[in-house]
Amino acid sequence: MSNIPVDPIALTADLVRCPSITPEEGGALVLLEGMLTKAGFACTRVDRGGVSNLFARWGAKDAVRTFGFNGHTDVVPLGDEAAWTMPPFGAEQKDGYLWGRGATDMKSGVAAYVAAAIDFVTETPPKDGALILTITGDEEGDAVDGTAALLDWMEANGEAMDHCLVGEPTCPDELGQMIKIGRRGSLTAWITVTGEQGHSAYPHRANNPLPAMARLIDRLSSHELDQGTEHFDASTLATVTIDTGNPASNVIPAQSRATVNIRFNDAHSGASLTEWLQSELNRVEKEFGVEAAMDVRISGESFLTPPGELSELVSQAVKAETNMTPDLSTTGGTSDARFVKNHCPVVEFGLVGQTMHQVDERVEVALIPRLKTIYSRILRDYFA
Amino acid sequence: MSNIPVDPIALTADLVRCPSITPEEGGALVLLEGMLTKAGFACTRVDRGGVSNLFARWGAKDAVRTFGFNGHTDVVPLGDEAAWTMPPFGAEQKDGYLWGRGATDMKSGVAAYVAAAIDFVTETPPKDGALILTITGDEEGDAVDGTAALLDWMEANGEAMDHCLVGEPTCPDELGQMIKIGRRGSLTAWITVTGEQGHSAYPHRANNPLPAMARLIDRLSSHELDQGTEHFDASTLATVTIDTGNPASNVIPAQSRATVNIRFNDAHSGASLTEWLQSELNRVEKEFGVEAAMDVRISGESFLTPPGELSELVSQAVKAETNMTPDLSTTGGTSDARFVKNHCPVVEFGLVGQTMHQVDERVEVALIPRLKTIYSRILRDYFA
Repeated sequence: MSNIPVDPIALTADLVRCPSITPEEGGALVLLEGMLTKAGFACTRVDRGGVSNLFARWGAKDAVRTFGFNGHTDVVPLGDEAAWTMPPFGAEQKDGYLWGRGATDMKSGVAAYVAAAIDFVTETPPKDGALILTITGDEEGDAVDGTAALLDWMEANGEAMDHCLVGEPTCPDELGQMIKIGRRGSLTAWITVTGEQGHSAYPHRANNPLPAMARLIDRLSSHELDQGTEHFDASTLATVTIDTGNPASNVIPAQSRATVNIRFNDAHSGASLTEWLQSELNRVEKEFGVEAAMDVRISGESFLTPPGELSELVSQAVKAETNMTPDLSTTGGTSDARFVKNHCPVVEFGLVGQTMHQVDERVEVALIPRLKTIYSRILRDYFA
Repeated sequence: MSNIPVDPIALTADLVRCPSITPEEGGALVLLEGMLTKAGFACTRVDRGGVSNLFARWGAKDAVRTFGFNGHTDVVPLGDEAAWTMPPFGAEQKDGYLWGRGATDMKSGVAAYVAAAIDFVTETPPKDGALILTITGDEEGDAVDGTAALLDWMEANGEAMDHCLVGEPTCPDELGQMIKIGRRGSLTAWITVTGEQGHSAYPHRANNPLPAMARLIDRLSSHELDQGTEHFDASTLATVTIDTGNPASNVIPAQSRATVNIRFNDAHSGASLTEWLQSELNRVEKEFGVEAAMDVRISGESFLTPPGELSELVSQAVKAETNMTPDLSTTGGTSDARFVKNHCPVVEFGLVGQTMHQVDERVEVALIPRLKTIYSRILRDYFA
């Protein structure tokens, strides 16, 4: 094994050059598998449902402590490719940034922890300690065969982490600002209100579903779900679309559809919210004589890793390297931490997420080695 | 000139065989122009904007009394052609009905008054009397270059009717039930509510237009415009569509659109309703911080020909021929009477409108000569 430290900037650039638009592997996991194998990690490809995933272990299965890193190499689509200032898979550096799709979300994060992990096991291999890296190619897509597949495989094969860090970008503006110790849950409801078609000159002979839909959406939108809980902001409900598709101004439509997305904290569960939505549907059914139905998908329950050993460890490392005391936050969208939390305590810490999912996604080059340094300190302190 | 009475059933069939889907002339006006010219009418084609219209006068311009008939030969599209039981332009007779698009709305009505008018001027030409028939090919379409064009041309050419009967189907179930002495107005508003796009996980950073739209539509839909007036039913408002077109459940849309159609009586005007709608738009703008805009089209103001000489004449003729006392009604959609009312007193009377605009449109054959008989009596009594 070489003792030359892994350069996380070069590794980020190599990963950005892999066109791994979800669910394409794009060469990213092959690259990492090669590096990790060379550094002494036992690698297993855990592919499922056409999705590529990589499991990498260093150290013994019966180690006293096993620390895990989780992340993904798949990226969201390019959007308007013509609008990109720099080639989206070019990984070019300009103005202090490394440009490209996935530069922030989250190939730089993966590069930083892979670099930290390789250096750590090469330079100061922990006695009685083990490392597990789980890297998926399906976080930006359905996420059904990604981290969930890795965790299923681990359980079936007696593999376990004691603690896990997800390397997603977590800082709003500056490196060190924020650690995520939980996430809100997310529920989407596709609502259909059905009445009876007719002529708009004779509304009494029809049963227009739109007044019922408007009343329902007004009620859902103006309802206060809660005012926040100890570790969570207030839950939010967003009506994202209402559609009818009736082009004729003299026709009363038979049906209208709406989609509602709820991001909820630990005051609710997917089940309790489903029950509430159903009661509101029943209410307009009675009031307007329409039929109101819904399909519900709970893409994640809310979860929390209460402040404790893991968040303390990560906070101390962040503070030591950035001189900032990070907020312990539960804001934002969902991440694969929602799967990991069923396996072991999990927190998330990574770079500044400002350009993620946008055209001209880019990462500040200088932050990548700083993130690696923080991850390295976490490993040192964890196994100290 | 022949003294053989015109057969209104055969004429209806001939007209139905003309495929005059609006705005196509389809041969219908050419056919009528030939017949009327032969019977001594002075015919002028008043075509405008790609639409065909026919003006026909019998008698002198300085006649003491001029009676007018108005109608249209254009028809609505076939809808699902495969669903028709009989060929839609076949004019076949079966089960006592003559089948085809326009059989009811309103080629039978045109055939009945053309037959009545030709027979009348042939058999008992009125002294000092004149007849004007205005027949348009643009009633079912935009109606911009139809009866309106005919009336414009008449004004420019010193042509005038003293009274006019529109031969639209007016009877809900039985011939003789209903005369229309007015119509409600119709206003359509295309509403756009604009907020600010964002991620549904961070609704506070966006400004969702949908809660404002839902509140607005709920208010408009639940508002009582009036409880009806002396000759009119209550005004009605129908929201006919709400559309957003946002497929992504994690995106808050920037804009949503809705269309509202108001059928209003003489308690309102297009202007007063526009003002009310605007005040409701302003209200949600203030409450939600969105932009709310609308385009309004007033396709007709409400109008009334108060019960009097003309409605009395038509009622008496209907009663004499059907033994029914017709209701003087203002119900239903719009018709070209909304243009004629600016020119002279106008009422509407015609057949049973049950299958109009539907697949398998058809007319009860026996009713067509009965309608001709009523129209003939109206002419006799008018000029007596």
